[in-house]
Amino acid sequence: METNLPKFESVFTIDCVIFAFDAGKLKILLIERNEEPFKDWLALPGNFVNTDEGIDQAAERILYELTGLKGIYMEQLHIFGDVGRHPQGRVITVAYYAMIRLSGQKEPKPVSSFAKKAFWHATDMLPKLAFDHTKIFEKSLQKIKNKIFYSPIAFELLPEKFSLTQLQQLYEVILNKKLDKRNFRKKMLNYGILKELDEKQQGVSYRAAKLYKFDRRKYNKLFQKELSFGG
Amino acid sequence: METNLPKFESVFTIDCVIFAFDAGKLKILLIERNEEPFKDWLALPGNFVNTDEGIDQAAERILYELTGLKGIYMEQLHIFGDVGRHPQGRVITVAYYAMIRLSGQKEPKPVSSFAKKAFWHATDMLPKLAFDHTKIFEKSLQKIKNKIFYSPIAFELLPEKFSLTQLQQLYEVILNKKLDKRNFRKKMLNYGILKELDEKQQGVSYRAAKLYKFDRRKYNKLFQKELSFGG
Repeated sequence: METNLPKFESVFTIDCVIFAFDAGKLKILLIERNEEPFKDWLALPGNFVNTDEGIDQAAERILYELTGLKGIYMEQLHIFGDVGRHPQGRVITVAYYAMIRLSGQKEPKPVSSFAKKAFWHATDMLPKLAFDHTKIFEKSLQKIKNKIFYSPIAFELLPEKFSLTQLQQLYEVILNKKLDKRNFRKKMLNYGILKELDEKQQGVSYRAAKLYKFDRRKYNKLFQKELSFGG
Repeated sequence: METNLPKFESVFTIDCVIFAFDAGKLKILLIERNEEPFKDWLALPGNFVNTDEGIDQAAERILYELTGLKGIYMEQLHIFGDVGRHPQGRVITVAYYAMIRLSGQKEPKPVSSFAKKAFWHATDMLPKLAFDHTKIFEKSLQKIKNKIFYSPIAFELLPEKFSLTQLQQLYEVILNKKLDKRNFRKKMLNYGILKELDEKQQGVSYRAAKLYKFDRRKYNKLFQKELSFGG
């Protein structure tokens, strides 16, 4: 493409923070990189944006190439553009994030040789990540911490049918604190956004818990009430 | 800076959407550009990010240079990175936005010769803007439309002391619809986040309205209630 733009050129990348909830833990997708000079580094799935592709399109391609995941709706989180964030020069990155339901997903597996492997890792004991990826992860965790107060993101992470204990666990790991069981259940049921099912948990040796489904229609009605303030 | 990065270089810019509320209208800041090939074009205040500056720092510098405004807390809105968005080549832009209180602000005035002038313009009859700036504006308007449901942004735009009529006008212009006066007042007063003042509007010939102040402490208490869903 012909250009007579001023010479303020930067290299532009995308990094993806994909959250899931599994066995009582909040997890994110990581890759192990395959190429020098960053061989063996653990990182968020991320790579360069090509000059001829849009950034949303690039995000989708990069996530697929590095993890095999497809059709995941990611949103922009934030742009990280500090001057010294990358050892090789000025690299500006757009972080994208998504929350997904693990059940039904294939095991992650890189398609491109850029990554040696892709895997889920619990967020409460993350290893050292490449570049400023720890900071990017922290920003995305903060984002979902805020968002859980005004948006039903918890239900994007849970299986379609879940117990109140699972729901509480998820809130606890995202908010990073214990919640009172009685209060939690009372509040959650009072919203009227959970549909009690005629089913119980399978394959548990202890007393099987009731299962619930999220009622998005009722949630939308509740949320769309004009001028509400999250109170 | 030495670099051995791949050649996926892009030019990187910042555009600012600064909202204010004035005389019953929602307004944004525009500039008239001064340099060929875009001389006389109307645009959001925006320019290139220098290779040696962080992006938040660049946003602050650019807004100051083009409008004279300083010390305004802007947040990232979105990155616009479509391949064909700029006629001169691949230009990726980060849009920043802010809502400010007009009272006490100086008239906008460019410091750099990049802009011929800077001025407030009502959002309900915006002229044709440069590049994809209309799209950037629309995205930011959508953002504040959503945000007004879970965040007290209205009070960032109003004067410190305001009447309920002013508050309702602001909601109406942001949501782009008429609201029922009785319901609006009832709901707003019920939240308990408005402090009634012992003052009335000055300089009006008709019946002077009571003035209110936003009570941020009470709002925070209301909003911080755990697990609330905006309902």
